[in-house]
Amino acid sequence: MALIKISNLSKAYGDEYALKDLSLTIEENKIYGLLGRNGAGKTTLLNLITNRIFPTEGKVTIDGIDVASNEEIVDKIYFMTEKDLYPDSMRVNELFKWTKSFYPNFDMEYALELSKKFGINIKKKFKELSTGYSSISKIIVTLASGAEVLIFDEPVLGLDAHHREFFYKELIRNYTEEPKTIILSTHIIEEISSILEGVIIVKDKNILKNDDVENILSNSYTVSGLSKKVDEYIKDKNCINVESMANFKAATIMEKLSKEEKELISKLELEVSKVELQKLFIYLTGEEECK
Amino acid sequence: MALIKISNLSKAYGDEYALKDLSLTIEENKIYGLLGRNGAGKTTLLNLITNRIFPTEGKVTIDGIDVASNEEIVDKIYFMTEKDLYPDSMRVNELFKWTKSFYPNFDMEYALELSKKFGINIKKKFKELSTGYSSISKIIVTLASGAEVLIFDEPVLGLDAHHREFFYKELIRNYTEEPKTIILSTHIIEEISSILEGVIIVKDKNILKNDDVENILSNSYTVSGLSKKVDEYIKDKNCINVESMANFKAATIMEKLSKEEKELISKLELEVSKVELQKLFIYLTGEEECK
Repeated sequence: MALIKISNLSKAYGDEYALKDLSLTIEENKIYGLLGRNGAGKTTLLNLITNRIFPTEGKVTIDGIDVASNEEIVDKIYFMTEKDLYPDSMRVNELFKWTKSFYPNFDMEYALELSKKFGINIKKKFKELSTGYSSISKIIVTLASGAEVLIFDEPVLGLDAHHREFFYKELIRNYTEEPKTIILSTHIIEEISSILEGVIIVKDKNILKNDDVENILSNSYTVSGLSKKVDEYIKDKNCINVESMANFKAATIMEKLSKEEKELISKLELEVSKVELQKLFIYLTGEEECK
Repeated sequence: MALIKISNLSKAYGDEYALKDLSLTIEENKIYGLLGRNGAGKTTLLNLITNRIFPTEGKVTIDGIDVASNEEIVDKIYFMTEKDLYPDSMRVNELFKWTKSFYPNFDMEYALELSKKFGINIKKKFKELSTGYSSISKIIVTLASGAEVLIFDEPVLGLDAHHREFFYKELIRNYTEEPKTIILSTHIIEEISSILEGVIIVKDKNILKNDDVENILSNSYTVSGLSKKVDEYIKDKNCINVESMANFKAATIMEKLSKEEKELISKLELEVSKVELQKLFIYLTGEEECK
């Protein structure tokens, strides 16, 4: 059990709020994507959940227990951070042992097996690793941690396409074998869209969306065709993006596509198509208006 | 003019070769993708081209002049490295000024305009920047450098999807306005495949492929269907990957798809489809065999 509840959470640095009055429930045994623009506050949110920094207002509970009042509850979570917290001179195999001292369920055999499969030299020191292999070493520790909640912050930074594919497959294998809560904070959205169940989008210091990927994708579509007809179609719709080229236009709508709508689109001689998650993210978090 | 010729280039560290007997011509005014797995030697190659490290054997010339004998010829190139070479305490606007002292054609106005568009605070020090904004500051300096050859090593590291899209668009705009040679070394292949003209793949200490993207993509295809029939079809083909599921198979072939082949595929009741560049890269640089 590891139900994470975030209630009216705010974090300010001086006068500036990084997150403001944010509430969110992270369900158990689900794979989430945590999405947001550079600087949106994703890492701040993850640091608050894991009690690495303290909220200005509000609280985070795991299974009903406030993380600020009980350090041990946070041990249910393993948080792979983008910044390294270990000394540069530590070797990868020393990191494994070091982690086992904090996470007794750490699976050393699994960590060594993954090291082989990723092709990492575990005798190397951190400071000798490239960006890609530094990410790989942290991925391995997180997967093998034995924690009930795994949080990955930018896990695929510097990983080549092979390594990314292997990571995604291994993540699913690990999750299928022993369901757990997984939170992936990443900018490489399209590649992970098929493995996510839930999506949490952070924008303007708060949660913009918290929904199942399936729901999000099935509640959006793009219509394209002659500008005049697209304009006519979208005028009373929840349009989130428009692209124009000569006298053609493509508009993305954030609504369910009903049978009546399909008929109307066909009557107007417009085309309809699906939207990819990464595109949807760009439209939802962008500043541009539908004109 | 900036024609880069690499002749029988080798680089060894102790007994271990990072690159061996590599020859390559990089044509002018073309956009190249430099692809390779983690640790394949891409950065070593770029460091040799820009005379930051010295070859064990062979040489690199720019417009016929050996880069090792003439430091100034290297000034035709601006190389955005993954590792930071500037002091941590330098501010972004100081980096602009510093670059202008080495690259007299550095366009300060353009750098400031890009800074605004990317939303970076140029008064910040490097050490205060996140991975994404650190990449952005280096992208700006490279684009504004005024050099004839721009080399980007992992430019989109940590960039959100908006920023990546803006970078790709700006790169094309910059190139269209003033054609130059651009080399992009990146692991996020699929997103850039549409902007590349040439692809250079590094594998086993040498060049595996150096060809136009169009050629590569039009000389490959995937056939899928019943395993037995796929096996029959591929037995005398240059197969580079096979995926199986129950009694179905998909095989990717690295050959031109002729009219006769199309007829044969249709006779065998197989489906044919195109291959994406990132997938092709994975197949070509992988260790797996076609079975």
